Amino acid sequence: MADAAVRSKKPATSKRTPAGGAPTAPHTAEEAHEPRIDVPAVTDLLLGTWADTRREAREMIKDPAFWRIEGMPMAEHRERVMSQLHLLVEHGGSRRAFPEEYGGLNDNGANLAGFMELVLADPSLQIKSGVQWGLFGSAVYQLGTKPHHDAWLEGIMDLTIPGAFAMTETGHGSDVAAIGTTATYDPDTEEFVIHTPFRGAWKDYLGNAAVHGKAATVFAQLITGGVNYGVHCFFVPLRDDEGAFLPGVGGEDDGVKGGLNGIDNGRLHFDHVRVPRENLLNRYGDVAADGTYSSEIDSPGRRFFTMLGALVQGRVSLDGAATTGTALALYIALTYAGQRRQFDSGTGSDEVVLLDYGKHQRRLLPLLAQNYAQFFANDELLKKFDTVFSGKNDTPREREDLETLAAALKPLSTWAALDTIQECREACGGSGFLAENRFTSLHADLDIYATFEGDNNVLLQLVGKRLLSDYATQFKNADAASLAKFAVGQTAGKLFHGAGLRQLGQTVADFGSTARSVELGLRADQQHDLLAGRVQQMISDVAAALRPAAKLSPAEAAALFNAHQAELIEAARAHGELLQWEAFTDGVNRVQDAGTKQVLTWLRDLFGLSMIEKHLAWHMINGRLSTQRAASVSRYIDRLALRLRPHAQDLVDAYGFEPEHVRAPIASGAEKARQDEARAHYAALKASSDAPVSEKSLKKK
Amino acid sequence: MADAAVRSKKPATSKRTPAGGAPTAPHTAEEAHEPRIDVPAVTDLLLGTWADTRREAREMIKDPAFWRIEGMPMAEHRERVMSQLHLLVEHGGSRRAFPEEYGGLNDNGANLAGFMELVLADPSLQIKSGVQWGLFGSAVYQLGTKPHHDAWLEGIMDLTIPGAFAMTETGHGSDVAAIGTTATYDPDTEEFVIHTPFRGAWKDYLGNAAVHGKAATVFAQLITGGVNYGVHCFFVPLRDDEGAFLPGVGGEDDGVKGGLNGIDNGRLHFDHVRVPRENLLNRYGDVAADGTYSSEIDSPGRRFFTMLGALVQGRVSLDGAATTGTALALYIALTYAGQRRQFDSGTGSDEVVLLDYGKHQRRLLPLLAQNYAQFFANDELLKKFDTVFSGKNDTPREREDLETLAAALKPLSTWAALDTIQECREACGGSGFLAENRFTSLHADLDIYATFEGDNNVLLQLVGKRLLSDYATQFKNADAASLAKFAVGQTAGKLFHGAGLRQLGQTVADFGSTARSVELGLRADQQHDLLAGRVQQMISDVAAALRPAAKLSPAEAAALFNAHQAELIEAARAHGELLQWEAFTDGVNRVQDAGTKQVLTWLRDLFGLSMIEKHLAWHMINGRLSTQRAASVSRYIDRLALRLRPHAQDLVDAYGFEPEHVRAPIASGAEKARQDEARAHYAALKASSDAPVSEKSLKKK
Repeated sequence: MADAAVRSKKPATSKRTPAGGAPTAPHTAEEAHEPRIDVPAVTDLLLGTWADTRREAREMIKDPAFWRIEGMPMAEHRERVMSQLHLLVEHGGSRRAFPEEYGGLNDNGANLAGFMELVLADPSLQIKSGVQWGLFGSAVYQLGTKPHHDAWLEGIMDLTIPGAFAMTETGHGSDVAAIGTTATYDPDTEEFVIHTPFRGAWKDYLGNAAVHGKAATVFAQLITGGVNYGVHCFFVPLRDDEGAFLPGVGGEDDGVKGGLNGIDNGRLHFDHVRVPRENLLNRYGDVAADGTYSSEIDSPGRRFFTMLGALVQGRVSLDGAATTGTALALYIALTYAGQRRQFDSGTGSDEVVLLDYGKHQRRLLPLLAQNYAQFFANDELLKKFDTVFSGKNDTPREREDLETLAAALKPLSTWAALDTIQECREACGGSGFLAENRFTSLHADLDIYATFEGDNNVLLQLVGKRLLSDYATQFKNADAASLAKFAVGQTAGKLFHGAGLRQLGQTVADFGSTARSVELGLRADQQHDLLAGRVQQMISDVAAALRPAAKLSPAEAAALFNAHQAELIEAARAHGELLQWEAFTDGVNRVQDAGTKQVLTWLRDLFGLSMIEKHLAWHMINGRLSTQRAASVSRYIDRLALRLRPHAQDLVDAYGFEPEHVRAPIASGAEKARQDEARAHYAALKASSDAPVSEKSLKKK
Repeated sequence: MADAAVRSKKPATSKRTPAGGAPTAPHTAEEAHEPRIDVPAVTDLLLGTWADTRREAREMIKDPAFWRIEGMPMAEHRERVMSQLHLLVEHGGSRRAFPEEYGGLNDNGANLAGFMELVLADPSLQIKSGVQWGLFGSAVYQLGTKPHHDAWLEGIMDLTIPGAFAMTETGHGSDVAAIGTTATYDPDTEEFVIHTPFRGAWKDYLGNAAVHGKAATVFAQLITGGVNYGVHCFFVPLRDDEGAFLPGVGGEDDGVKGGLNGIDNGRLHFDHVRVPRENLLNRYGDVAADGTYSSEIDSPGRRFFTMLGALVQGRVSLDGAATTGTALALYIALTYAGQRRQFDSGTGSDEVVLLDYGKHQRRLLPLLAQNYAQFFANDELLKKFDTVFSGKNDTPREREDLETLAAALKPLSTWAALDTIQECREACGGSGFLAENRFTSLHADLDIYATFEGDNNVLLQLVGKRLLSDYATQFKNADAASLAKFAVGQTAGKLFHGAGLRQLGQTVADFGSTARSVELGLRADQQHDLLAGRVQQMISDVAAALRPAAKLSPAEAAALFNAHQAELIEAARAHGELLQWEAFTDGVNRVQDAGTKQVLTWLRDLFGLSMIEKHLAWHMINGRLSTQRAASVSRYIDRLALRLRPHAQDLVDAYGFEPEHVRAPIASGAEKARQDEARAHYAALKASSDAPVSEKSLKKK
């Protein structure tokens, strides 16, 4: 890293002593004679289980052909990204998730780990790849059977069949079950008739639909023999070799979007388009030649969720990509904050480096801690995904856990990406607004991550419902007394760890060595109790509030649920935060090196306490924190931020980015060079006889 | 408004009764038989003191020639906006702030009121106009004297002299006093030599610098006779008639930015560029032919702040533009939320309109309340600005109050713009991400408002220092005992209203008619006590923490200040929130119509309680709210949101936007048409014999 080189060459004279006058902690751990992280070891830790694949992907995207060019007009950008997809194919990047008999590698975890890194090159590339191989290709692979694999998988992998994933409609996004497109079976011709009955049922926002898609996996209500068997997926050709729509197919370009303009999103509609019966992707439901429907999953609801669940990888992938994109923003902003100077300290010495300001530490370092938590949580999610999809442990319960985990983590990381990138942008002032410094286009591109592949609030509501249902199962036979006991108990939190990453009650090691008295009540165990207790209490409160629903009319019950919707979503968010904290703690516990362990423990504490501070009023109202201890939380965070200040550059260097991933001029060392030049100019002027005296100094005389 | 027409034509059958099954409040006030706002009267109230000018500006920008075209490449966009500036000149839009003897209208309040509205057409147009007439033109007018006005004002007004405002440097943004550019007087030739001594001193991020600027007002350290008299402003020609840089002048294009790409931001540097002595804009400081410096302001610090203060209008203008831009986003998202349906309610009836969801009300309605507060506060700010700049009440104290007010309000409204636009974007899902629906480009363009014309955190720190200094003045002769008494007293809050909009202790009317018992403790008086008490306590806490500084070394004192920087910024933010609340309350008190007064009081309560909820832990830790009352705040907000639900469309219609201002297809009524078509399709199908039965219903049999 360019900056690491700069830092290691720093002469001893740059050390800042207290007498030097800056209101600051030491700038580096080296200067502070403090424990220091082993940077390469932390990089390994962050890259996680599939570190090798990630490194391979990062090596590949050092090629400028993969980089986003800021300000490129939409049409050109779309073609550039399409050509990047072909490059990916050449590098073998499209094969990892597919079965070996078709030239794939059958390595699900590695596949997602590799794709996530593409966000560093251009998020449009990451998402268009996701459309082609993660959604369109996955639908054929996961929802189809051998004849479909034989017919199309190779063409999908080598990009001779670019395709759209036609699920969302203008009128139905998150509520997939209610889409309007129909696929009516005609036994006379043994064909399905794909039809769009009204404008709201147009397929919409589909990558590859506006220009490149030759085919689509179209989700539609399967109707045969006068019965609607619910949503199924069909392989439907869209365009001929010249790119013209096939008969009955029509569409529109979605035009300019807020970001991801390297992807040709568009709309599709179908006017009685006929496809062969065999184009039904029939793994979970089939129609015989005579029109008889069959499925090995009897319940229509469970069948629907099984089909949708097969496509969970999109959420897993977004969680990772958002985490990596956020890391990039933090790398740029914190590197700049360690070099940029502004305002003198009032002591007559040099201007102050941004990261020495209390406010600057407070605005950026908790976000860094959060991002670390996300890395650890994403690796757990990825491992769970791989275990299920590789078949190593593929049970309905494991699938459900995986979906719940993904639904809990994707909202948190995609929102954190937007908040963090924005804070980083503002922390770099005007230079942060220049497209070359990456923040603005990262924000624009990642904006949609919060609402696609499942709207964040809708996903959290799903998680909340799952938590409620676990709660109800646990207490199926319990009386009111034990319910009440549960509500105040501290230990029952473990109930929720069916969907969690670790079992509660496991001893959490605490590595703080110089804890002050007020900090003693906010160590790891207490952080966990507070975070876990909050989930438990919130779910139990919502459950209690909803109990009368059973005796109400459907309309009244719906109104009652609606009155508690926001609380349930909050509870699910608390659950996600707990999962992140636990993953971070498990990660820290795996560390051997004492210095690394110490610094990462501080960082984990900063994360835990930031989550507690965010919900401080809740903890007080619910009797979890006394007023006095609550008041100490913010002060403890201030101290942790100051303590972590000298480690900031190490911690972002540990992301392992190379200059070809960063590319932002303000994080290249150019700012340090400018600052040094300016200070040298004034030093030389001062040493010469040419320096003007200041009016102020004259007036003092 | 298109939608108002739709609503007034709504047939009686669309009324939703409780039996109708939706978990919802009535959709409109009409249906609810509740008090209802007088929409045109509220529009008048929101448009405020210069409503006529605003309406004139809104009328002008109905011309599509003023509209932003999404996705337009940068070079084209820049030329389009330049041509829009010429159109503005033709409409007389550039004359309002300038003196009558040069063809101006000398109407400062109207001038800013008119410019703010341009944000609806294209924020690039608003900001490029601001650069030309609000910054470059203002510098010549406010910092220059008659010869400068005679020479350049007409050319500035009619755009024959497009100019840049060259204050910021690559190395110095908010810290203007430390810029590196020098203007050294040469008595032999009676010229100033403008010079850029190092790369960090290049002027940067300047609108009109990359392409269009023929001249610039350049801020530089004025050096004469070997003495540096601090930052002064110089009129410096940049380019010849062919657009080529004049000798010694150089520059670079800033390139693509995160937004505002209709403005040609760039960098400038000067290599010993000579300008006549008379090009010093000499209102506050002059150099005689022999090099003698003179100024009617003796203190260099006060002179510097007086010059900068003359340019406060930029901040006033951004506060208003951010408020109007936010209103547009709320109009679009709330109109859509009232038409879009998603998920059925589980009662077998229609799908639910988004705004009927508890979470949707909770995420959008408090932002609407906040935006109303901003409108009222901005009008107060604008009146204060006009009073000072018209000379009606132009004292140093009034100027200082004006600057403090602007510094308190601009950060709050520009941050609220980004948060609100983002929430609106997400609340509209995929359709919110299409550029045609405005959110993404509004966010991109307004992003920089948070850090230009004074970084928001730096501005709030200025406000905090002013509050500290007012506090210190008040207690100059007070002993420790009365300081301590102050810290716990409730009534001392009025101290801070020197810089505020209203005097504390004034009776605050309370129009709640059906208050429940828990609400009684959170009415207007209590809201005010809580908000004002928080400012007072926070300032007094910081002041107490900083008291030891006087006995410390400069370095230790700086470190002590730094440890409390984030708290001081928080205190300033609390001050701004109080000012907004007071302005909102004053506005409500001016209303005569009972229905309007009732609904706006609810909205004001929602704003006040949202601010209290945001800082709930603080109020509990500091003994201002009991646990029980704190717990009731969120429930009260839920109730207020539900109570305001039927008024949401009225409240956004009251912004007074017309279709040419809104332009977003999702707020055009198209969504309602799609929903109606879909429901009609299913109704017809149900009535026919062709409807497929659902598999679920078969299984039930």
